[in-house]
Amino acid sequence: MSVPAPRIRLGMIGGGEDAFIGAVHRIAARLDDRYEFVAGALSSSAEKSIRSGLALGLPRERSYPDYPAMIAGEAKRADGVEAVAIVTPNHVHVPAAQACLAAGLHVICDKPLAVSLAEARGLAAAAAGSGRIFAVTYNYTGYPMVRHARAMVAAGEIGRVRVVQVEYAQDWLSTRLEESGQKQAAWRTDPARSGPAGALGDIGTHAFNLAEFVSGERVVSVACDLQATVPGRQLDDNAQMLLRFRRGARGGLWASQVAVGRENGLCLRVYGETAGLEWRQEEPNSLRVSRLGEAPRVVTRASAAARPEAARVTRLPGGHPEGYLEAFATIYSEVARAIVAHKAGAALPSDVSFPDIGEGMRGMAFIEAAIRSGRSDARWTEIES
Amino acid sequence: MSVPAPRIRLGMIGGGEDAFIGAVHRIAARLDDRYEFVAGALSSSAEKSIRSGLALGLPRERSYPDYPAMIAGEAKRADGVEAVAIVTPNHVHVPAAQACLAAGLHVICDKPLAVSLAEARGLAAAAAGSGRIFAVTYNYTGYPMVRHARAMVAAGEIGRVRVVQVEYAQDWLSTRLEESGQKQAAWRTDPARSGPAGALGDIGTHAFNLAEFVSGERVVSVACDLQATVPGRQLDDNAQMLLRFRRGARGGLWASQVAVGRENGLCLRVYGETAGLEWRQEEPNSLRVSRLGEAPRVVTRASAAARPEAARVTRLPGGHPEGYLEAFATIYSEVARAIVAHKAGAALPSDVSFPDIGEGMRGMAFIEAAIRSGRSDARWTEIES
Amino acid sequence: MSVPAPRIRLGMIGGGEDAFIGAVHRIAARLDDRYEFVAGALSSSAEKSIRSGLALGLPRERSYPDYPAMIAGEAKRADGVEAVAIVTPNHVHVPAAQACLAAGLHVICDKPLAVSLAEARGLAAAAAGSGRIFAVTYNYTGYPMVRHARAMVAAGEIGRVRVVQVEYAQDWLSTRLEESGQKQAAWRTDPARSGPAGALGDIGTHAFNLAEFVSGERVVSVACDLQATVPGRQLDDNAQMLLRFRRGARGGLWASQVAVGRENGLCLRVYGETAGLEWRQEEPNSLRVSRLGEAPRVVTRASAAARPEAARVTRLPGGHPEGYLEAFATIYSEVARAIVAHKAGAALPSDVSFPDIGEGMRGMAFIEAAIRSGRSDARWTEIES
Amino acid sequence: MSVPAPRIRLGMIGGGEDAFIGAVHRIAARLDDRYEFVAGALSSSAEKSIRSGLALGLPRERSYPDYPAMIAGEAKRADGVEAVAIVTPNHVHVPAAQACLAAGLHVICDKPLAVSLAEARGLAAAAAGSGRIFAVTYNYTGYPMVRHARAMVAAGEIGRVRVVQVEYAQDWLSTRLEESGQKQAAWRTDPARSGPAGALGDIGTHAFNLAEFVSGERVVSVACDLQATVPGRQLDDNAQMLLRFRRGARGGLWASQVAVGRENGLCLRVYGETAGLEWRQEEPNSLRVSRLGEAPRVVTRASAAARPEAARVTRLPGGHPEGYLEAFATIYSEVARAIVAHKAGAALPSDVSFPDIGEGMRGMAFIEAAIRSGRSDARWTEIES
Repeated sequence: MSVPAPRIRLGMIGGGEDAFIGAVHRIAARLDDRYEFVAGALSSSAEKSIRSGLALGLPRERSYPDYPAMIAGEAKRADGVEAVAIVTPNHVHVPAAQACLAAGLHVICDKPLAVSLAEARGLAAAAAGSGRIFAVTYNYTGYPMVRHARAMVAAGEIGRVRVVQVEYAQDWLSTRLEESGQKQAAWRTDPARSGPAGALGDIGTHAFNLAEFVSGERVVSVACDLQATVPGRQLDDNAQMLLRFRRGARGGLWASQVAVGRENGLCLRVYGETAGLEWRQEEPNSLRVSRLGEAPRVVTRASAAARPEAARVTRLPGGHPEGYLEAFATIYSEVARAIVAHKAGAALPSDVSFPDIGEGMRGMAFIEAAIRSGRSDARWTEIES
Repeated sequence: MSVPAPRIRLGMIGGGEDAFIGAVHRIAARLDDRYEFVAGALSSSAEKSIRSGLALGLPRERSYPDYPAMIAGEAKRADGVEAVAIVTPNHVHVPAAQACLAAGLHVICDKPLAVSLAEARGLAAAAAGSGRIFAVTYNYTGYPMVRHARAMVAAGEIGRVRVVQVEYAQDWLSTRLEESGQKQAAWRTDPARSGPAGALGDIGTHAFNLAEFVSGERVVSVACDLQATVPGRQLDDNAQMLLRFRRGARGGLWASQVAVGRENGLCLRVYGETAGLEWRQEEPNSLRVSRLGEAPRVVTRASAAARPEAARVTRLPGGHPEGYLEAFATIYSEVARAIVAHKAGAALPSDVSFPDIGEGMRGMAFIEAAIRSGRSDARWTEIES
Repeated sequence: MSVPAPRIRLGMIGGGEDAFIGAVHRIAARLDDRYEFVAGALSSSAEKSIRSGLALGLPRERSYPDYPAMIAGEAKRADGVEAVAIVTPNHVHVPAAQACLAAGLHVICDKPLAVSLAEARGLAAAAAGSGRIFAVTYNYTGYPMVRHARAMVAAGEIGRVRVVQVEYAQDWLSTRLEESGQKQAAWRTDPARSGPAGALGDIGTHAFNLAEFVSGERVVSVACDLQATVPGRQLDDNAQMLLRFRRGARGGLWASQVAVGRENGLCLRVYGETAGLEWRQEEPNSLRVSRLGEAPRVVTRASAAARPEAARVTRLPGGHPEGYLEAFATIYSEVARAIVAHKAGAALPSDVSFPDIGEGMRGMAFIEAAIRSGRSDARWTEIES
Repeated sequence: MSVPAPRIRLGMIGGGEDAFIGAVHRIAARLDDRYEFVAGALSSSAEKSIRSGLALGLPRERSYPDYPAMIAGEAKRADGVEAVAIVTPNHVHVPAAQACLAAGLHVICDKPLAVSLAEARGLAAAAAGSGRIFAVTYNYTGYPMVRHARAMVAAGEIGRVRVVQVEYAQDWLSTRLEESGQKQAAWRTDPARSGPAGALGDIGTHAFNLAEFVSGERVVSVACDLQATVPGRQLDDNAQMLLRFRRGARGGLWASQVAVGRENGLCLRVYGETAGLEWRQEEPNSLRVSRLGEAPRVVTRASAAARPEAARVTRLPGGHPEGYLEAFATIYSEVARAIVAHKAGAALPSDVSFPDIGEGMRGMAFIEAAIRSGRSDARWTEIES
């Protein structure tokens, strides 16, 4: 008789009042009942941090004013946090993660991992040295049909990959929203908090990650045209680029936050010698699979046609739509499996899959290459591996 | 500073091993963090019931062999359950709910409410007498765009309703799955456990409920053609019917579990004098709104065009799809608001909305009218109100 | 070396100024270059008739004041018309067709064929006696993917048919357009010109025809709820009905001209034991084909997956959309093949397929059954065969 | 009373047996009854040319062995051709067009206009000198919703254009079809007949033209990655590029003939400051129009929301799909209006719109810039204007 593993005690840095992604992480952690949210340092303002913790039902003594206090306070408790979710603006990711690792905590960090590749490398070294689990929430890899697509490519079902088209189009920054006091817009368009990349870092990295995740191919170089479309904006809000992959595939990537009428239009298309795959995040429960010379098929999550890699990370029968939170929860639950194995001193389960610090580093390398290319008139620029 | 209400202690009857809907209820209860699942009588077999509870992490003493034991055991605890979810086959709904009400517990019961209208009436009387909250999980009413649609109709934005087309098409019973040992199919096609209705009760009631919920109109009579399409099946697996509404609207309803290629195709279309609304459960984040003489609009959840009634029950920005679990969770969270108010001796919040026992009774009245009509060669048959 | 058959000389009755369908017939006849439009009696007003003919480039002597004059005039010419298209309001169909047949002309007649079944029967007898080709423009049967669907069913690829859902929803009569002077609306809502059926005859017959054409099954009885939704309208503008087919299949039919937001929403779904087929007229170049246990496929016109029955009546490669006119032209071109064979004294080509007077009679029998059922409170009413 | 203009006498060069586009041109010319096809030199083989003419119903004396013979023969006739459609492989376009112009004939020439920009310039000079009408069949500009989109942009309804994404994806050259004897594939992949561009010329030029047509903006430079994906192929079958527009807009263009599962996927998206437009050729009857802060609208051809620029070039009511042939016919009919005006010595009607030799030249300049960029490692390369 299987007894479930006890829930992992989770702390959170960032994600208090006015934040969007903090609530997402908390629901994602809760959805499959693998975590218990027990402590937080939820804002860069001590007062707001404590207030946010209380508002979320944390006891006063675990509603910390800042993350050093949280790490110190929890370390003293027998029931202290085991893992920490870092959901701050980008510039805090690395110092907070370094502190967590130093305290022996597992880390689940939002993307982009850092504000520079050099900073990310330092963190990666620390993570490797710590032996702790380190996940980066490229959450779109949690969608079952994304995993189905990846598995098809890996199994050779589309032949050699020839062309990869990926795009991520939004419209929420079509105006200078950052001047309205909207917090999400304010930090994302501020180089001091977001780092050198705007849309490129916020959504371009997701697109890049998805393209590599599904195609199983590494992008070796990019030719990138970056633009701050909205007058007065400091960071890019639109990026177009050409991609070259290691084994010869070519691609295009478009990331935009000024595409009026697009809400969260992440879309991936991968064409191989013998089949093509098309997936849209806004209709995530199906994947269009076209084999050469056959009628395209609409493969749905949890149907008889879904592969085990998809079926394993789905909760509901076909036609009962799962969405963004479920995919995000899958990342959390996969990390939980890894942490449980770690605690038991066991090897990671062979099928566990979540984006790790290596993927976080790839994202930073991509950002830096794209920016360098953008500054050199879209010259082909290698992505450091 | 708002302090969140403490989580409601939830017990569950049914929903153990092999069940589908039990897990759904548990996730739905957990998603918004308004409930704590603390006790269960999860199967009609005592052994399986206890085993299921343990497997879900319940302590042994709250993994009960049957629901009378659970109700008795919890009543003795200071931290006993406050509400119970009933997710058994249909024939157990009423006795279990009666027992819960008698013990002063709030009830969240799956649909159809009962195996007969008479039985449902008895329960309704008990519920009224108890003063407890009683919800019936017509979960599709939890979708934000369904609420948007209902609010539009209620606000007069489509004019007088003329035509309502609703359908719910699945294909999972296209073969005699019930003979394969599949538990879900087995009880749903067995009159002893499902009651007199097959597809009609399982999904037809959802379609009926959705049509009334959105249109704001009562169906007064039905002309129904019922069929057990698959040879040897005892209960209907396909139902077609004509609908007449109180204020003159006409409609069609189709419920089928033999529509090969349809997974969970619940679809509602409401046409008024000045606008038409179309919604599909499998793409639940948008609603097609067509005003006379204008181009149809695709209104999405959480967009600027979404009404407050939709925005209030959504968690994510537009383009980040929510799905079945989120809608289900909304029902649970609305019930939680009602229970919290009840505990405080306060009136229900004016905007709280969940399907109650009245809607559960409507469903039973619909089933009985449809069956009577089906037996009389589709003669128009009134729905008892 | 093949020399093409000379073009068939075509006359037209009705279809002058302000008409919609006359222009459609003329383009359809011209598209594949199998006809030459040479004479017309294009309106019930002599002056308008002549003016319309001249405006279309007919010479004055072949722009006739009325159809008896046309038939008489053309009979005197060595190069007189061989076939006549009848595109008048419904009440003129039969007298005009009778006159054409009596003059030895082939007839292409719009639907519904007549204003009563009795009238249609008289015409059918005349047509049979004449030995001439008689087509009724149930034009939707000209779509390649409709033919693909029919061929699949006929080949047993979906197993025994269980359920047929067909609908035809428009919104152009959502208001009393007939009072605005709009000619199309005026005659269609006038019993004196349209006959006893409104939407039922105008579009319901198309839906009925399509259901029988694709399913290969005869509808034996209907239970119909007919309604004039818009106050003051004399004929039905909304019809809902249940269908029973000869070999046991059940169905639903909905025809409406008050479904706000629907332009020309003809949609057919046929579910058999082993597969389901779904087709939408507004996206006519594809057919959704779902086999039990497999992912649904989107079969497109002119793709490798298209059957010969579809490929034979298509003109363009896949992805180059064909539309309404092309499907209509296919009916004309099939009739042309029949006329050419007739002229040669040869048998009809075995694969020629167009809706004939038998289908026209079925449509009238359907209308009368539906109206009788509607008048008897939706009692099941047999369709006379 | 309006009398229609007499039909224009049309000859054709190319387009005989085995050709695809010849038949399209003939149907397009015939559809609106503005042309009469009277003479042809339909193949580069004299025998095949004559045979093809006879098979199409041309008299023997107007079924010419080659185009010089046709031009000479027709010049001697009082009823000789007035306009010629040139539908040969690319390398014949310019010499044939030169000969037609020299004979005083109007020309409708397929795209790409030439095999080099220099050659195109010579032709443009000849055309200008001749005073004759010269059209290039960028046929996708004939779609009503494309014209609607262009008119919206021109009217300032989307604000300043920021981003243009255009793609044209097919899969028919995913294998070495050119080795199978398929004639269309053979010449398109042969530099001697196709010129220096493969997919770039065949479909990339359409995408480029569409982007400029709708956006009203000139592309000033491209950074292009060209690839012959299929081993052994001499010309590109996949092209990705970045675009910069004169007034600052940025864009991406992807043209591919190896995108497995795509039939004729031409898709344009234009995002301005205040609205976004999206159009797909495979569903051409609608345009998605999203205004900032409003729900996206699906504007359909011939609906009340369609602009006059769309309504003017449509034949059918909404919901009755028009397709590729109708759009192509619109180009022909617009050219007919121009020729009629020319014959009358009148000015062109102010609203007449068809792609002219200037657009043909733009296409050649685009091809050459893209190839130069491709050869210089995707360096930004100016398009000569």
